[in-house]
Amino acid sequence: MIAESELQKLRELEREHLRLINLDPLQRGGVLSPEARKALDTWGDGYSVCDFCTGRLDLIRSPPICQFVYEILPKFLVVDVARVTNGAREGKFMVMHSICKPGDTIVIDKNAHYTTYVAAERVGLNLKIVPNSGYPEFRINPEDYAKAIEEVKTETGKVPSLTLLTHPDGNYGNLPDAKRVAGISHEHSVPFLLNAAYGIGRMPVSCKEVDCDFVVGSGHKSMASSGPVGVFGTKKEYEDIILRRSKYFKSKEVELLGCTARGATVITLIASFNSVLRRVGEWEREVESARWFSQEMEKLGFNQLGEKPHNHDLMFIESKRLFEISQKHPQRGYFLYEELKKRGIVGIKPGLTKSFKLSTYRLGRPDLEKVVDAFKDILGHF
Amino acid sequence: MIAESELQKLRELEREHLRLINLDPLQRGGVLSPEARKALDTWGDGYSVCDFCTGRLDLIRSPPICQFVYEILPKFLVVDVARVTNGAREGKFMVMHSICKPGDTIVIDKNAHYTTYVAAERVGLNLKIVPNSGYPEFRINPEDYAKAIEEVKTETGKVPSLTLLTHPDGNYGNLPDAKRVAGISHEHSVPFLLNAAYGIGRMPVSCKEVDCDFVVGSGHKSMASSGPVGVFGTKKEYEDIILRRSKYFKSKEVELLGCTARGATVITLIASFNSVLRRVGEWEREVESARWFSQEMEKLGFNQLGEKPHNHDLMFIESKRLFEISQKHPQRGYFLYEELKKRGIVGIKPGLTKSFKLSTYRLGRPDLEKVVDAFKDILGHF
Repeated sequence: MIAESELQKLRELEREHLRLINLDPLQRGGVLSPEARKALDTWGDGYSVCDFCTGRLDLIRSPPICQFVYEILPKFLVVDVARVTNGAREGKFMVMHSICKPGDTIVIDKNAHYTTYVAAERVGLNLKIVPNSGYPEFRINPEDYAKAIEEVKTETGKVPSLTLLTHPDGNYGNLPDAKRVAGISHEHSVPFLLNAAYGIGRMPVSCKEVDCDFVVGSGHKSMASSGPVGVFGTKKEYEDIILRRSKYFKSKEVELLGCTARGATVITLIASFNSVLRRVGEWEREVESARWFSQEMEKLGFNQLGEKPHNHDLMFIESKRLFEISQKHPQRGYFLYEELKKRGIVGIKPGLTKSFKLSTYRLGRPDLEKVVDAFKDILGHF
Repeated sequence: MIAESELQKLRELEREHLRLINLDPLQRGGVLSPEARKALDTWGDGYSVCDFCTGRLDLIRSPPICQFVYEILPKFLVVDVARVTNGAREGKFMVMHSICKPGDTIVIDKNAHYTTYVAAERVGLNLKIVPNSGYPEFRINPEDYAKAIEEVKTETGKVPSLTLLTHPDGNYGNLPDAKRVAGISHEHSVPFLLNAAYGIGRMPVSCKEVDCDFVVGSGHKSMASSGPVGVFGTKKEYEDIILRRSKYFKSKEVELLGCTARGATVITLIASFNSVLRRVGEWEREVESARWFSQEMEKLGFNQLGEKPHNHDLMFIESKRLFEISQKHPQRGYFLYEELKKRGIVGIKPGLTKSFKLSTYRLGRPDLEKVVDAFKDILGHF
């Protein structure tokens, strides 16, 4: 029996963070547009997007999922073929599961998201990891992909079945030269997957320009959508492999298990697209904003790690001073979280002081000034 | 370049079906509770449920995902271990991918949902299909599972690696004897997966009583949740196989790719749970309602196929008369859709007349009377 006291908790779903300044990189790009919020209200019910299902999610014409997937998304990603997925991780698994065999080795960057590791593990793949340059910039050097591919050849007798680059990565917000990684991969006849979970929906990403074979993006991370949802793109030549059809049900794509983001998630992705397109056009302003913030923080004695000058809103901050304070504070590392919260700021992981990541994305100068002032205030306070 | 005319369509996301009587079996159980609707408004932003992430979705304490997954859900399903998934199909794939090897054979029922086929195909499995009894009841006889298992043994030299039963199935709404299928499976040392996508959240489902090894359910189909989301349950003895941890990231579960329904979908599942629990307690009334509807339709000359008397709200209706009308009607089969819509009723697939499925779930007597009257009216009109 489920006790009434247990059930009561499910009725208390207030969101404390709702009206605070949220620096969480996971969340900055996923804030819904007003259009998406309205769409949620209209289309929130279960499978409502399937009112006019003709057998597959991406073929539905009303709401215009079909148009979004077959016309708009390929143009947006500048890619031959696109689909909507349940997220970037699901997109990565789909690619690995289709073009790699268990026991194969793939090459990934040291800054890869944990889901890259887990997706590869789920397929049964071995990993060859391209190192980063270490402290303080943690850069990925594209030329190291050539070295890694050669090593895989020596060790296994064949080239890796995939290369993957995280662009930008989710720790430092570094943007390595993806085009060069694509070039090196193709020189060795290895297909190349670009993980742009923190890219697509924030900044311009052109698969054509990068010449990647596959791309994955994240709706909840960077496209103002309710989670979990993502986008996937592939070159035409891989369409029949990744999007192979079921032998039992001719219209169903096996790797997508027929349909993926069948509900509220896809409708927010579509509803937000106009505003996402607009904000991608404003990316330079976001980079300026991130650089301004980084400089202001450095003036306070913080170090911004990762590429400098920085090219993305996601950044990694190091602070000896906050760490020193935490060593003497009764709340230890949690003091920073509490002090920021008192000042209306959240999103830095509770407990962290020595180093933490944050994002400035779409916060705007007044809010970012509040954040800088808050840090200044906290430093002065102890 | 994306044309303005293309973008304009993404701004027109009105839902025509919103205030009509909707008979679509896919949708009846997914209508949001008022609590879920409110939660969507509060928690719709991207990854908002991860405000207090400590490394894994199901460990988040605020909102109470952890409590839901570890305390409430196991009690609700009467199962040792539970998780939230991206849907029933994803749950089925997860089980097959964990306990079967490519080339293995599994036994499924003839009434299985297409995603059972596609999930098995994605893993590379062969299928042995337990037939149904054919027209008019299409029943699954549990004893045929014994025969199927023996056939697999003869053909492959080993027992199948899994049996699966669809309970109820999505075409006829039949409820075969799941406990007996579990018993037969276990007599042959074969683990048994119960697909209760149309069961859990509508009717009482106890894994303990059925003695299934795994269960999957669907939030958007039957638990008043935004899609895509599902639930999964397993016996303790399979926990370490299905929910094995990553060797790279110790807290992450490989088959879940770390986290599954990370956003709006899981919050609606939780927010609706109180009302879902209540309605499961009212299941007998729903069965009565379905039987009443079936009888009224039969009085009009329709045949209700599948089990009779019927035990579920999902049913399959056959109509010679509507088919005859369609043969002479200028709109052909589409006339029924149009005629019903004129009368405020949707959810029967456009084009169908000869046979179609529908659900009476939670429509209530006044709306069901309207539906019966509409059919009567249409029959009288032509």
